[in-house]
Amino acid sequence: MTLCISLAARPSNIGTRFHNYLYDLLELNYVYKAFAPADLAQAIAGVRGLPIRGCAVSMPYKEDVIALVDRMDASALAIASVNTIVNDDGVLTAYNTDYLAIVRLLADHHVPASYSVLLRGSGGMAKAVAAALRDSGFSDVTVVARNEATGRLLADAYDFNWRPDAAGATADLLINVTPLGMAGEDEDIQAFDDAAVAAAHTVFDVVALPSETPLIKAARTAGKPVITGAEVIAVQAEEQFVLYTGVRPTPEQVKAASEFSRA
Amino acid sequence: MTLCISLAARPSNIGTRFHNYLYDLLELNYVYKAFAPADLAQAIAGVRGLPIRGCAVSMPYKEDVIALVDRMDASALAIASVNTIVNDDGVLTAYNTDYLAIVRLLADHHVPASYSVLLRGSGGMAKAVAAALRDSGFSDVTVVARNEATGRLLADAYDFNWRPDAAGATADLLINVTPLGMAGEDEDIQAFDDAAVAAAHTVFDVVALPSETPLIKAARTAGKPVITGAEVIAVQAEEQFVLYTGVRPTPEQVKAASEFSRA
Repeated sequence: MTLCISLAARPSNIGTRFHNYLYDLLELNYVYKAFAPADLAQAIAGVRGLPIRGCAVSMPYKEDVIALVDRMDASALAIASVNTIVNDDGVLTAYNTDYLAIVRLLADHHVPASYSVLLRGSGGMAKAVAAALRDSGFSDVTVVARNEATGRLLADAYDFNWRPDAAGATADLLINVTPLGMAGEDEDIQAFDDAAVAAAHTVFDVVALPSETPLIKAARTAGKPVITGAEVIAVQAEEQFVLYTGVRPTPEQVKAASEFSRA
Repeated sequence: MTLCISLAARPSNIGTRFHNYLYDLLELNYVYKAFAPADLAQAIAGVRGLPIRGCAVSMPYKEDVIALVDRMDASALAIASVNTIVNDDGVLTAYNTDYLAIVRLLADHHVPASYSVLLRGSGGMAKAVAAALRDSGFSDVTVVARNEATGRLLADAYDFNWRPDAAGATADLLINVTPLGMAGEDEDIQAFDDAAVAAAHTVFDVVALPSETPLIKAARTAGKPVITGAEVIAVQAEEQFVLYTGVRPTPEQVKAASEFSRA
């Protein structure tokens, strides 16, 4: 039996349910377990020495783990952030399947690289989205972030523009990478207003819990194509699954696993 | 969910089946997995850092692991050999539940410490049996081992006698700790002859695969009380289970798990 794990300060059970569901469905002799590590370096030593085949990495370990792996895949190098480690006979290669998922979703949804983009947010996931946009050929991108320091830093890194707020701004593609619309104190806040939604061609919200955010609901009401945070989570988990097992599940299997994992 | 594991060069699935059976039966949110470690020190780092709650240690790691733990329980100290590690918030305590099992079986079967003993064998398990005999108050013990060096070393360590073969020897308690009677080339060999069995009061064979060895069969035919290797494996696994979970299963539950694990 092959073990895959996740490391996070606050483990969620979404990944555990997603991977174990597909292991059962595809009759793979794997098991997936979430850990809140007592010590990151020792946990990674265990990945190498037990050995453990695959290891998802979540907050707050995505950058600290870089020093502990042997190789960085381009996906992790692009944003200097790791969310996936694959162990090939003791050689640990780091990936970022969030980045891979954004690249794939932009392509799968046929979003033209010529679109102008408003990218709201400047945290770690915003960096993954910015790098994915740049590497997918998008160049007319404006980072929207109240924090000028982090907003300008992110924008400058990718030769994008920056503005402090979204008021009055429009673009072909709206992307929310802030917690606005996430369950909690910001759950009723629509990350871009109705006028921006009306002017957009595609609306993308990375928020996954819930994935039907005020922004996504407004976009659906306006008849705009949407990309949801649920898709990001499912696609990044699918890419992890393929890296760990070498098996690509069908879209129907991924959909079933995704729905099960979020139930 | 809490993880317990085993480390062995050649993992058997008996422990995996025993523990997982009881986890299911007792509705404990635990899972047990066997590993053949790529690197022992890194594997133990993983036990500490992930963390992993419990870790069984088999050949060839029972002595090498001593340098990697924090505390030695008296059971492991008695024979300088570890088969069980318990992780309490990053503090690793080593035990030897083989030793604990022998002590308990001698008591449970009411074997008087005044019995004379023939102990055949001089390997690692023979050391566990010798220490358990000494610590249970047995003093009239003769180690039977063709290899004079290891036989005398073991006997001298516990102030026991040594003889090179069992021919013509008798004692109240016969104990086989050699591979004689084990599936393979020695499976038809009876570790003590019929005359020794006839003169004995109790016959104990540590061989577990199969546990119905020629010696045990001869003892049953002669109407002698027996202690089998299947009991040793079940009791040592039960003691591990208690150390890992804090829950002591009933004798009936242990019996069911033991039968399941060997099926």
